[in-house]
Amino acid sequence: MGDTIVVQLPLDVTSKTAEIYRTAASLIVTKGFNATSMNDIAAAVGLTKAGLYHYIRGKQDLLFSIMQFAMDVVDCQVLEPASQIVDAEQRLRFILTRHAGMTDQVKAITILAEEVAALNERDRETIIARKRQYFDCVRNTLQELSAEGKLRDLDVSVATLNLFAMVLGLARWYRPDGKLSAEAIAEQTAKLLLEGLLRPASP
Amino acid sequence: MGDTIVVQLPLDVTSKTAEIYRTAASLIVTKGFNATSMNDIAAAVGLTKAGLYHYIRGKQDLLFSIMQFAMDVVDCQVLEPASQIVDAEQRLRFILTRHAGMTDQVKAITILAEEVAALNERDRETIIARKRQYFDCVRNTLQELSAEGKLRDLDVSVATLNLFAMVLGLARWYRPDGKLSAEAIAEQTAKLLLEGLLRPASP
Repeated sequence: MGDTIVVQLPLDVTSKTAEIYRTAASLIVTKGFNATSMNDIAAAVGLTKAGLYHYIRGKQDLLFSIMQFAMDVVDCQVLEPASQIVDAEQRLRFILTRHAGMTDQVKAITILAEEVAALNERDRETIIARKRQYFDCVRNTLQELSAEGKLRDLDVSVATLNLFAMVLGLARWYRPDGKLSAEAIAEQTAKLLLEGLLRPASP
Repeated sequence: MGDTIVVQLPLDVTSKTAEIYRTAASLIVTKGFNATSMNDIAAAVGLTKAGLYHYIRGKQDLLFSIMQFAMDVVDCQVLEPASQIVDAEQRLRFILTRHAGMTDQVKAITILAEEVAALNERDRETIIARKRQYFDCVRNTLQELSAEGKLRDLDVSVATLNLFAMVLGLARWYRPDGKLSAEAIAEQTAKLLLEGLLRPASP
């Protein structure tokens, strides 16, 4: 269903800039923002420091760019295609499976997107507003399911926050060398959440 | 059931030391470990810096002490009473409700317990081993439920990691001034997870 919808990302995920974002995000998640230098990032992507400045303006700017990129990925791969799915249950299934399935590609980037405290106020507001949009999309979907009598007896806001905790948590614990594939983990996570959220279909 | 079991914490939660741990944890979670000074902590608990050193040896030591305290709270309030519950399903219900219900009291402390990267190697290993013990207790409980045919068709390790992501996530999003009480949120979270994890009882 969602697989037939193709949305263009503003930035090619195979580009050098995207590689810099992914690598810098991994370094920052491991070492912390303050302890990661422009030299560390340059070395990790095989560029001189001068070469790195061809792609980015500075560390603070880089952090915001990475977060914007993370939100672009979410918009294009999850939010935009989800908005075209009329049925709330199908939409929820799509969002959960798709988001959980992105973990492998954009692990560090999604973790980093939580570190808004390091941004300046204007940038922080931009990122928070974009996250809010994603949150509202999921919340509205649960609200629709509740109105249709498909949601269990759960508070919609608490359920949405709990759902995000589990889905965003994937990026923190997922290891590419683990026993299960990223797809299998995404399926398991979607299954657990859907069984927890939705009333069993009447026999 | 669990409420009849009383286990003594090594540190009185109403003591000055416990207050210092809670306050310091809140500051460190908000400002970051490096940006939080001993002066900040002293001021926040109404002590002089010399007075503060009566309770703690230094910032690095404080961080480890806070984490040990967090794990003591988990041991006494969750793990120890849980180990006395023979039935796996009852044990899981107890763990989920009890842990989720602690959020209000020990919010910052449980968030901080995730920041093991700032510890020296020996202390880090101590904390990781204690967390491992908690993880194994929940994992073994799900394994028992699986053997009893009560668990849905889920991978036990992935389900455990997903469960912890949701329960630990509570401390990150919970606000004491929110619409629902900490107890109501704990109940909602336990309900969502139990419905997601357990097969419906046969009619």
